[in-house]
Amino acid sequence: MAKTDLDLMNKLVSLCKRRGFIFPSAEIYGGIGGFYDFGPLGTELKNNIKRAWWKKMVQERNDVVGLDSSICAPRAVWEASGHLAGFTDPLVECKKCHHRFRADQIEKGKCPDCGGELTEAKKFNLLMKTFLGAVEGEQNEAYLRGETCQGIYLDYLNVKDATRKKLPFGIAQIGKAFRNEITPGNFIFRTREFEQMEMQYFVQPKQAKKYYDQWKGWTMDWYKSFITQPKNLRWRQHQQDELAHYAKEAWDIEYRTPFSSDGWSEFAGVHNRGDWDLSRHAKFSGVDMNYSDEKTGEKFIPWVVEVSQGADRAVLMFLIDAYREVETRSGDEDAKHEKEVVLKLHRDLAPIKIAILPLSKKENLSKLASEIQRDLAPYFMTMADETGSIGKRYRRQDEIGTPYCVTVDFESLEDKKVTVRDRDTMKQDRVATRELKDYFKEKFDV
Amino acid sequence: MAKTDLDLMNKLVSLCKRRGFIFPSAEIYGGIGGFYDFGPLGTELKNNIKRAWWKKMVQERNDVVGLDSSICAPRAVWEASGHLAGFTDPLVECKKCHHRFRADQIEKGKCPDCGGELTEAKKFNLLMKTFLGAVEGEQNEAYLRGETCQGIYLDYLNVKDATRKKLPFGIAQIGKAFRNEITPGNFIFRTREFEQMEMQYFVQPKQAKKYYDQWKGWTMDWYKSFITQPKNLRWRQHQQDELAHYAKEAWDIEYRTPFSSDGWSEFAGVHNRGDWDLSRHAKFSGVDMNYSDEKTGEKFIPWVVEVSQGADRAVLMFLIDAYREVETRSGDEDAKHEKEVVLKLHRDLAPIKIAILPLSKKENLSKLASEIQRDLAPYFMTMADETGSIGKRYRRQDEIGTPYCVTVDFESLEDKKVTVRDRDTMKQDRVATRELKDYFKEKFDV
Repeated sequence: MAKTDLDLMNKLVSLCKRRGFIFPSAEIYGGIGGFYDFGPLGTELKNNIKRAWWKKMVQERNDVVGLDSSICAPRAVWEASGHLAGFTDPLVECKKCHHRFRADQIEKGKCPDCGGELTEAKKFNLLMKTFLGAVEGEQNEAYLRGETCQGIYLDYLNVKDATRKKLPFGIAQIGKAFRNEITPGNFIFRTREFEQMEMQYFVQPKQAKKYYDQWKGWTMDWYKSFITQPKNLRWRQHQQDELAHYAKEAWDIEYRTPFSSDGWSEFAGVHNRGDWDLSRHAKFSGVDMNYSDEKTGEKFIPWVVEVSQGADRAVLMFLIDAYREVETRSGDEDAKHEKEVVLKLHRDLAPIKIAILPLSKKENLSKLASEIQRDLAPYFMTMADETGSIGKRYRRQDEIGTPYCVTVDFESLEDKKVTVRDRDTMKQDRVATRELKDYFKEKFDV
Repeated sequence: MAKTDLDLMNKLVSLCKRRGFIFPSAEIYGGIGGFYDFGPLGTELKNNIKRAWWKKMVQERNDVVGLDSSICAPRAVWEASGHLAGFTDPLVECKKCHHRFRADQIEKGKCPDCGGELTEAKKFNLLMKTFLGAVEGEQNEAYLRGETCQGIYLDYLNVKDATRKKLPFGIAQIGKAFRNEITPGNFIFRTREFEQMEMQYFVQPKQAKKYYDQWKGWTMDWYKSFITQPKNLRWRQHQQDELAHYAKEAWDIEYRTPFSSDGWSEFAGVHNRGDWDLSRHAKFSGVDMNYSDEKTGEKFIPWVVEVSQGADRAVLMFLIDAYREVETRSGDEDAKHEKEVVLKLHRDLAPIKIAILPLSKKENLSKLASEIQRDLAPYFMTMADETGSIGKRYRRQDEIGTPYCVTVDFESLEDKKVTVRDRDTMKQDRVATRELKDYFKEKFDV
């Protein structure tokens, strides 16, 4: 892959729109910069990613529980967190057209839009503000969260008390966050509304390093379990001068992307946040956040090891990772001189698990196909398609990453068997319709 | 049930806090009116509700696909939708303390807070405003959506084109919406941040009534499939003077609640929105929203039948419906003179499916219990509890609605069997540990 490959990126964005993975938000009104909608296939893909994460992070662990806290939080929370003071990009503003630009992305003293003179760099807050209630005034300011983890710190004591957990334990959350990015871009990579999958692990301070290393391993393993090109993943450590205000140590997981100038982009971070967050909230709220260790008699503010992953970014990584152009293979006559696209999405993530394709629209084939779909639909996301040649339909399913196609042909009416085509091996199995459910249950380990 | 039963409501709110279903948001800062967080158990319950809805509404149907559109939308969307003009409560304001009150809830001309004189009733917009981008000014106003369905209308053409669907078909969405309610209250019933489960069904105008009646049936059936007290559900039709600006016909599903003055509260609505939404967006965006019927040659703006359900409200309905106080049954010595609480949640909705309870903390029992949990955890949400008497632990699980408790006793070490207790029948089965996974897979129809 070249360092930037805008042609690939354009093809991916176009596929996402055409097949219903991702649309620009409010497109009929000209769009709204930094916002995207997930279409029918994108919603399934993203839901599958979130579900897979939750299963591994919460369901399969005894030491992590879930949370779903509100998006809005009052001003005091963001003062304590340091975001109102520190969550900023230095900006310059044009004295003539009043457009603003990130100071670190501007080279000259003249505005790139109108040629006007630029101000000194100023700070601009990335939190999005709103107003609550019927009485106007500053007391009713609220902010959309810039990161989901703050809700976890606010509920740390409530969760600890309700679950009777002892350290170390973690609280996980999936949810929307908002940042008033100055330069949203690169499709769903940098948006103003995005979804995070975060887990905060509360530990005895002396054990922070040990658990930090364990969670680093966990996070990389999670991505590796779903991608096809592990060589495109790497760790990058934050240098001292780029650490966020709360971080003692920070490593990013990067993946090779077609849009980044150095070829790599950040998809997740693992952070040692020390006692910054709980100490600040203790101080600003006046609530005691000390933990009493029953065994040692020690009292301390727990340290936090954070796993922070982007859900939209995971969608993007898995799409880039899965995208393949191959020589003609579907048998689609219209495509015989073109490359075909196959999305090699992990089968647990693929939006559609099984496509059901009656060979012709003849009524008795359609009827059998419908019966098969009705049997499978309670267990798997399925799609029926009876339009166009069978080659064209295979091609459509390859393009959206469907791992299995079930073809219902005239012989099926006689022998009650159907052909199951595997997206990756191209192998075709002849399977009895009454065994189909169990055949697929085994494939997907339901 | 009495018309209002605040004692029951208080017990439910207290249980939700104590066991980790629902906490007030930002509680350490004194809370934030109209916002709640879902704790570890509440998150599982709500996720199970959303998943069950999605399965029935999207996965098992060929005529409905999903969408996940952004929460923020530009001003133009809300002008077109009619919300900026019409989505308001008439308010009065105190000329002295400037507090505002809903005109229909105030009886006298004097402020209830300070006794000051009140203004005439004024309109107050319920949409929550925010600002985007680096340039200030009205062009950067955006609004948090007051209902999820607007995103569906904006993407109607994109979805139709990407999925090649013909009428009738529906688009479903689950997501957050925000309303600047003047009087949030009744726990999670009326909040400023809430989650909706909505489906918009696009139809030929002449068929709207037929599909309207079908979706009414579907919606009531959905609730009935999860509750234990169907007599507490009813339909209520909107009178002509209470119809929303977009509605031609509207029916609410109500459930008996302990907090409502007339005993009933609204949990869902089914609305015939006619061509209001698509026509308005066509007019305001300039994009043609006409549908061309290939068979009849007709061209028309599709009508919309809307199913609108509250996800938080569904949590509340299912909790109220499931709450039972029973005579002592767990064997908990501390509780022998008290009533005990059992949440009779539908097993598909229960936050924890299986609790694993080693009879003592002896190491070999703990080890076997851990092995059992490790086998079950990939398939079911489990919880381990080894603290307190077995009676106390049964009681804890009853109180959070866990359908099955697995007790690991000393005999288990010999015969490799465990006791499975059913929450509802109180029946105890002795099951071989190696058969446990299949035993439960059958119970939950995985």
